Amino acid sequence: MPKSKFYGNLNGQLIDYSVKQRADLFQDRGLAYGHGLFESILLYNAELPLLERHLLRLCRDAHKLGIPIQFERVEQYLKQLVEVLESDAVGKGVLKIIVTAGVGGRGYQSPEVTDPSIICLYSPVPEDMDRQRGEGIAVRYSEHRLPYNSALAGIKHLNRLDQVLARREWDCADYQDGLMFTDANQLIESISANVFLKNASGDWLTPRLDVAGVSGVMRSLLLEEIFPACQIPVAVVEVSSGELALCQELFVCNSIRGLVAVTSVHNSQNKPVKSLPIGEQTLMLRSKLVEKYPHYQ
Amino acid sequence: MPKSKFYGNLNGQLIDYSVKQRADLFQDRGLAYGHGLFESILLYNAELPLLERHLLRLCRDAHKLGIPIQFERVEQYLKQLVEVLESDAVGKGVLKIIVTAGVGGRGYQSPEVTDPSIICLYSPVPEDMDRQRGEGIAVRYSEHRLPYNSALAGIKHLNRLDQVLARREWDCADYQDGLMFTDANQLIESISANVFLKNASGDWLTPRLDVAGVSGVMRSLLLEEIFPACQIPVAVVEVSSGELALCQELFVCNSIRGLVAVTSVHNSQNKPVKSLPIGEQTLMLRSKLVEKYPHYQ
Repeated sequence: MPKSKFYGNLNGQLIDYSVKQRADLFQDRGLAYGHGLFESILLYNAELPLLERHLLRLCRDAHKLGIPIQFERVEQYLKQLVEVLESDAVGKGVLKIIVTAGVGGRGYQSPEVTDPSIICLYSPVPEDMDRQRGEGIAVRYSEHRLPYNSALAGIKHLNRLDQVLARREWDCADYQDGLMFTDANQLIESISANVFLKNASGDWLTPRLDVAGVSGVMRSLLLEEIFPACQIPVAVVEVSSGELALCQELFVCNSIRGLVAVTSVHNSQNKPVKSLPIGEQTLMLRSKLVEKYPHYQ
Repeated sequence: MPKSKFYGNLNGQLIDYSVKQRADLFQDRGLAYGHGLFESILLYNAELPLLERHLLRLCRDAHKLGIPIQFERVEQYLKQLVEVLESDAVGKGVLKIIVTAGVGGRGYQSPEVTDPSIICLYSPVPEDMDRQRGEGIAVRYSEHRLPYNSALAGIKHLNRLDQVLARREWDCADYQDGLMFTDANQLIESISANVFLKNASGDWLTPRLDVAGVSGVMRSLLLEEIFPACQIPVAVVEVSSGELALCQELFVCNSIRGLVAVTSVHNSQNKPVKSLPIGEQTLMLRSKLVEKYPHYQ
């Protein structure tokens, strides 16, 4: 595998350093305003396990931002890229799709006819992914708060400065993710994943995402398929930082890492809040996920 | 002037459709996360009247986002572009600078060493600018609310979906801007400008921007130079929608349009809230602005 090679396409045209690029991208509303969305999709043995969920979410949420895209078109561009990767014997990695409102409009005003930019980019799987899945991770409370924004809540849009600022709060290797809260100390998600916890009463919960947060594809899969298959009830509710501090099991999830147990929690002053074992039901849920989707083993 | 020509540079290299572009831009943190900032600078008779204010704000706020840039470097790239425009006899327009955190980092994590992308783009002045300056504009209350975000308040960053969504609330020509409020009905700014008003008691006010909004260059100029030169006191305070509804004079301002009177206000159901004449003190402030900076005549 040629490590340094760059794999990507823009509206189905391969992106190549040796090929002319559209100067349009400099004027793209994705760069100018973050007027767009993205998906990060696991590529495993040349398969995209949750492709349909990703594309359904992408198309649904793109319309909320005034970006009309067709499921089939994005799927086609993605598959073109997978073929190129296959021919180079690259079967594992992350495919990122960025869909923007393209070029046009007058300032913030959206274009009358939107010609979206659909960009697909390949990157290798995160180096420490296997270790995270096996051993769990340490997380830290983020000082930076997620703002209330019901119009944007749930959408995996390109306005990600909150996550960037939260991630800038530490630069050591002690933590693998940060937990993010609202001003009212409601837990929403981690910087790059959704969160599930088993509270002190033994009930499984995951935060509501109606005022902030990204409604993740893996979160939906767990709620709709994996928890039911394990016959474990789970509720989508407001989760306070107090409830979090007393939880018995805790894990984060996204469509790249799958389900990753949290084994230690620190606050934003880097003081330990609690240590947790990888819980029995967390293991049961992960086994069921891997049984149905071996891509996440 | 060749109307269809595209003028811009990336890190000082002219952007040309006939020249190879860096595929890097597809992986730029500006596109991925909106990890960057921008400035819109008036070009008038080959001069950039508020250049120093723009560059000082840009460099100050870039550091808040972990993007180290030098004033002189940005200035040099801008002046390169102005020279190209001059040689094509283009003396008027808008120069937009986009500065991003460049390529790198791991996901949301910022790169250890940041190599910023500095993009300069030319566009013509807005078509209706002269009419707006002369006749004033009609504005509309935006339904979409600005979220509280003290870490990002004031910064002209690339996360602009709030403005994009607010601007999508109407598509007729009846309004030229929208007023934006917090959830608590505090007035913050308009979609693309700052706001000043003379309240029912005759006091001039402009909203505080410590929880939301962009701290505009023209707003600073008015507060620091123009109001004092006119011997008109002005206060930076919380402004409620109630105070707005009773105001005697109202104008918006930014570094492209200068100072533009608001002559009619509608609510988000498009019902008229009030009509205003272009007030005496608004005219005095604008005269003083034009006297000091004829670029805004």
